[in-house]
Amino acid sequence: MNRRETLSLELNVFENFSPILPERYRSSPFVLLGNIAPALQLHVLDQVQAPQFIIANTIDFWIETAREDFLKLLKRIDMLILNEHEAQLLTGAINLIRAGRLLRELGPRFVVINKGEHGSLLFGENAFFSCPAFPLEEVQDPTGAGDSFAGGLIGYLAHTGKSGPQITFEHLRSAVLYGTVLASFNLESFSMDRFQMLTHSEIEERLLAFRLMIQCNSAPAERVRPIVSASSPVQSSVVLSIS
Amino acid sequence: MNRRETLSLELNVFENFSPILPERYRSSPFVLLGNIAPALQLHVLDQVQAPQFIIANTIDFWIETAREDFLKLLKRIDMLILNEHEAQLLTGAINLIRAGRLLRELGPRFVVINKGEHGSLLFGENAFFSCPAFPLEEVQDPTGAGDSFAGGLIGYLAHTGKSGPQITFEHLRSAVLYGTVLASFNLESFSMDRFQMLTHSEIEERLLAFRLMIQCNSAPAERVRPIVSASSPVQSSVVLSIS
Repeated sequence: MNRRETLSLELNVFENFSPILPERYRSSPFVLLGNIAPALQLHVLDQVQAPQFIIANTIDFWIETAREDFLKLLKRIDMLILNEHEAQLLTGAINLIRAGRLLRELGPRFVVINKGEHGSLLFGENAFFSCPAFPLEEVQDPTGAGDSFAGGLIGYLAHTGKSGPQITFEHLRSAVLYGTVLASFNLESFSMDRFQMLTHSEIEERLLAFRLMIQCNSAPAERVRPIVSASSPVQSSVVLSIS
Repeated sequence: MNRRETLSLELNVFENFSPILPERYRSSPFVLLGNIAPALQLHVLDQVQAPQFIIANTIDFWIETAREDFLKLLKRIDMLILNEHEAQLLTGAINLIRAGRLLRELGPRFVVINKGEHGSLLFGENAFFSCPAFPLEEVQDPTGAGDSFAGGLIGYLAHTGKSGPQITFEHLRSAVLYGTVLASFNLESFSMDRFQMLTHSEIEERLLAFRLMIQCNSAPAERVRPIVSASSPVQSSVVLSIS
């Protein structure tokens, strides 16, 4: 139920498509390369003058049919977003924590593995964030949830006013929360219906509710001590910074 | 991979087992009824003099073969812990958020749905906590992970020194974190091997690392406002308390 699978893909106009970016798009600092042939993602990226933070998304079809192009793309992006089955397909690893590490070794500094109703995993250098999904009793239409997630994520980053190098792992944690919340709205209605009437205050309200749902109290002060040895293959960035 | 299924069950000595609790066990305030025939869980519970917080666990086999007894048990416990497939089997709901709500309607004030590598969901009255799993690249042996989770959870509750009615949802959030961390140690080795050399400081260190991995910054103060209308079927207890 939680798995997308490419049963059939009709490229239609994309088959011989060679997108030319309008002039005003070429100066975009934040670039999200949506799911399309990796060669076209590279072609689009070549037209952006000075990208500061580049995110790419893909699906199983391109991993299977255009792996070489996709591996080239991975060397040029800051963040890869893909689902758990795509992560397993690309790396051969069943374990998602290992898959996340292996994906980073292919190029992107940051990787998000999206698990649908089970949330998402964000991997950085010596940094890790596990984000649950926003709880919904009714899911009307999952179409576009992945794009909503990626759009909410990069939209938040662009909104911070930070340049690419100023983006920290903390910004990315918040970006993943925004992506999760945006995706949850998308799931509530068919197509773009929910987004057409969505307001900023609704987003902020749900984000606050979500933060409270996933928060846990800080450890009692007397128990807080620096960690000097690795207790897990994935260390929290904050742990490392105080040790 | 993430799913347990009962292929065959040999009850052996449990077939005609009628456990008699030793005298000193009968005054236990915190009771964890492990997976066994619901009639026996009830029989054990009847022998406890003044239980303050009662947790029960089960498996698909008992839901299918002893549903009536199990429903009786649900009326007498404070918390039910079960995995996602058992939750779906018992309620008929595929959606786990709905399943959690339906399970609470069957009796227990609190429900934990365990999702293995995807973490767990804690449901209370107008309260919800979604807890990721602790990230591990290597899982040696999942046997006993569920019992380790439940044991860590109730062990923390007993350790708080609180009486049953004093246990708050915040205590339960922390208890779920401890359960998650204990289960993660269990996964690292075969059988009880890891627990035999496990120290309290290792537990506290991993708990701290885990808290940092799942934390997210508070919402900017100017964006924090009470939520007056339900934006989700499951509301955070904290949201409700400030609205």
